[in-house]
Amino acid sequence: MTSYGTLYLLPVGLGECQLEDVLPKRNIELIKTLSYFIAENAKEARAFLKQCAYPEISRAQLSLINQHVKIEELNAYLEPLLSGNHMGLMSDAGCPGIADPGADIIKLAHKKGIKVVPLVGPSSIVLSIMASGFNGQNFAFNGYLPIDKIARAKRIKELEQICLKSKQAQFFIETPYRNGNVFEDLLKTLQSSTQLLVATNITLVDENILVKPISAWKKSNVPDFFKKPTVFGIYL
Amino acid sequence: MTSYGTLYLLPVGLGECQLEDVLPKRNIELIKTLSYFIAENAKEARAFLKQCAYPEISRAQLSLINQHVKIEELNAYLEPLLSGNHMGLMSDAGCPGIADPGADIIKLAHKKGIKVVPLVGPSSIVLSIMASGFNGQNFAFNGYLPIDKIARAKRIKELEQICLKSKQAQFFIETPYRNGNVFEDLLKTLQSSTQLLVATNITLVDENILVKPISAWKKSNVPDFFKKPTVFGIYL
Repeated sequence: MTSYGTLYLLPVGLGECQLEDVLPKRNIELIKTLSYFIAENAKEARAFLKQCAYPEISRAQLSLINQHVKIEELNAYLEPLLSGNHMGLMSDAGCPGIADPGADIIKLAHKKGIKVVPLVGPSSIVLSIMASGFNGQNFAFNGYLPIDKIARAKRIKELEQICLKSKQAQFFIETPYRNGNVFEDLLKTLQSSTQLLVATNITLVDENILVKPISAWKKSNVPDFFKKPTVFGIYL
Repeated sequence: MTSYGTLYLLPVGLGECQLEDVLPKRNIELIKTLSYFIAENAKEARAFLKQCAYPEISRAQLSLINQHVKIEELNAYLEPLLSGNHMGLMSDAGCPGIADPGADIIKLAHKKGIKVVPLVGPSSIVLSIMASGFNGQNFAFNGYLPIDKIARAKRIKELEQICLKSKQAQFFIETPYRNGNVFEDLLKTLQSSTQLLVATNITLVDENILVKPISAWKKSNVPDFFKKPTVFGIYL
């Protein structure tokens, strides 16, 4: 038995929403008992704690991580855990460890034998996979597509080939202001029978989840996804 | 605008647990307003509705799906939606559409232009991916491994090769009573530096999530996963 604290993975809402719509009550109760947090951004983390009615936000100890923090520096972040305190790891939005810089902290925690407990919460990727109706037994999330137009078209073709060969549904995301470019490339590059999922602002008031074959997308309006977080998916 | 009902994807707890620990309050409130449900198993569905304090379980209209229902027969399941009623799709445990027979219903709903709304809830696969600390930007869920010992070892090697080549973390599940066989094959087949996640009874009281390199697993006790739902994952 270890006397280390537990690292709780704390999901955060995906935008302006009521917490009780997207988080179990347990999460909120647990968060209130924690004093140490690892987060991406202090402002967002404090806003989330406030939304949870965290008793005294000034006493919350925040350690900030981002992609510029070196692996060697991460050890120091786990100090409170090694001294027996529980900690909460949160991202700016969604679930820590999924499309998020928290994975390195989690990895290190396992290496040190620290208990890791993931809590239930919203992930735009997971909710999109659920809602796609594609293939729940075989799917991959690929992060971001290449920015370069030629490399991107090549990657889109590769992903479609994987769908065809392995019956594995393929999901990916894009920086919101580039959604239009990616959508255009998908319509140009994919076969007309390939199904395309466009899932925008998941869990928010204007959530919009559409699945159509490319042939039908070509006759439809462009989805209202400009600067809105969107998950794309393809399948046969 | 369509006057069809909405198909809500309703996650269910992963075993004996308090619903407020794993489901947002919104889910429970919404479930109470629905009259039509699609589920895998009537007994489990009614037990879940009871746990939600569903007002009159006898008035809940349940349609049952399983892997033996033919695609052609699914149209009839959507009738209430086409007549303007909302419906809830639930699995026996976890999130509909993820490692679950609900995907075909969802696919058909999209085809008919029915709005699909996924609700937040527990998925052992997603919580395992979060807790693994592997690669949240690139991961695949592969469902079940082959049962045949030779085919299974071949598949394990293939998945390890994908990790190596594409830096894509690989996750899979097994029928709980076969966990021991799969674990043994993983230890025999994988390279000693490959990281193996074994995540058992996620969200339940005896939840156990361990990540170690194969070399360390070989010196450890076999995890307590006999007949317990377990997610496996590998990465570098």
